[in-house]
Amino acid sequence: MTPILADIGNTTIDLLIEGVRHKHLIADFHPNTFTQEVWYSNVNHALSPILTSLPNWHTIADLVDKNRYYPTMGMDRIMVCEAIENGVIVDAGSAITVDRMEGGEYLGGFISLGLKAAQEAYGRLSPALAVSFNFEVDLTIMAKNTPDAITLGFLAPLIALIEGYGQTIYLSGGDAHLFKHFLKGAYVDEMLVFKGMKKLLEKGSLC
Amino acid sequence: MTPILADIGNTTIDLLIEGVRHKHLIADFHPNTFTQEVWYSNVNHALSPILTSLPNWHTIADLVDKNRYYPTMGMDRIMVCEAIENGVIVDAGSAITVDRMEGGEYLGGFISLGLKAAQEAYGRLSPALAVSFNFEVDLTIMAKNTPDAITLGFLAPLIALIEGYGQTIYLSGGDAHLFKHFLKGAYVDEMLVFKGMKKLLEKGSLC
Repeated sequence: MTPILADIGNTTIDLLIEGVRHKHLIADFHPNTFTQEVWYSNVNHALSPILTSLPNWHTIADLVDKNRYYPTMGMDRIMVCEAIENGVIVDAGSAITVDRMEGGEYLGGFISLGLKAAQEAYGRLSPALAVSFNFEVDLTIMAKNTPDAITLGFLAPLIALIEGYGQTIYLSGGDAHLFKHFLKGAYVDEMLVFKGMKKLLEKGSLC
Repeated sequence: MTPILADIGNTTIDLLIEGVRHKHLIADFHPNTFTQEVWYSNVNHALSPILTSLPNWHTIADLVDKNRYYPTMGMDRIMVCEAIENGVIVDAGSAITVDRMEGGEYLGGFISLGLKAAQEAYGRLSPALAVSFNFEVDLTIMAKNTPDAITLGFLAPLIALIEGYGQTIYLSGGDAHLFKHFLKGAYVDEMLVFKGMKKLLEKGSLC
């Protein structure tokens, strides 16, 4: 039987059970009700003690060659990198992580604010900037109104830098489709974390 | 006698009196104690009623051709544009405004979060990201630790976009010198708002 795969974040848990995805809020999630074998990628430190106490829950971290990454790097970020041999991987969630792989080697990355966090930060700065992003904005033209000015201020530099690497672009995370609008040639792939986990499990079983 | 020039923000007021700058907190600032003529650029809406009620305080907004800019654009931002004929103007304060001028025409701009606002927004996102920016980071290399990853995530796209315009770069605002570190060829000019005001006053008196 294929083990269950679990991608555990700070607010939600994504499960892959026999090829079907199930998303739950962490608050509604009780790992001790599972009897099957589960492999998990976890960035939620509060859950670590209970997960490590359960004999059928196995951390994918044990299969990762940690020398290839950096110590504080989130496990979900490592998984999307493991899934890709060559390319830029943009995981657009509450934060936006951008990582580059070349010939299976991790080149490094950077972390931007997520769209929601950025928009909130503008609003906190000044009531005049408490406006919504305009995702219809043309990033190639300088802005002449406030919604365009903040959307452009956040997105134009980020999109330009990501495109500038000249690599294949993979998008994942809740805002992947918004980014796809600006990164026409990119591939949206919501399965990257699970793909990375699967690759490591296959590699692991070969040793 | 040269009139006093005042650049009024949300927390501080910058005065230019006979060529000498004086900075005050808005809380310590009492416009009715001034007997001289004052021309001011103001973005602090709470102060507008008192300023307009004083006969010796004159708003520079009256001398601006507003068709050249957009309605919600801050007056300080308009002043830095008035000061420059050709170039990119980066005003790095609590927000970072980036505006482009060509042949004296306003091309438009965008607004980024200020360094402090961005750093705070990362910290709000996750305790793991509540680290300080590393201003010694090499923006040309992908990051392999968290402080570098967030500094790069915020600065690398912004710097790349600003440099990409291929225009002369002018820096002003409290974080101008930090940006100078990454934009080697840029000119730091803390007098841009006053220069724009002076230019408008000279033009105004010619009509």
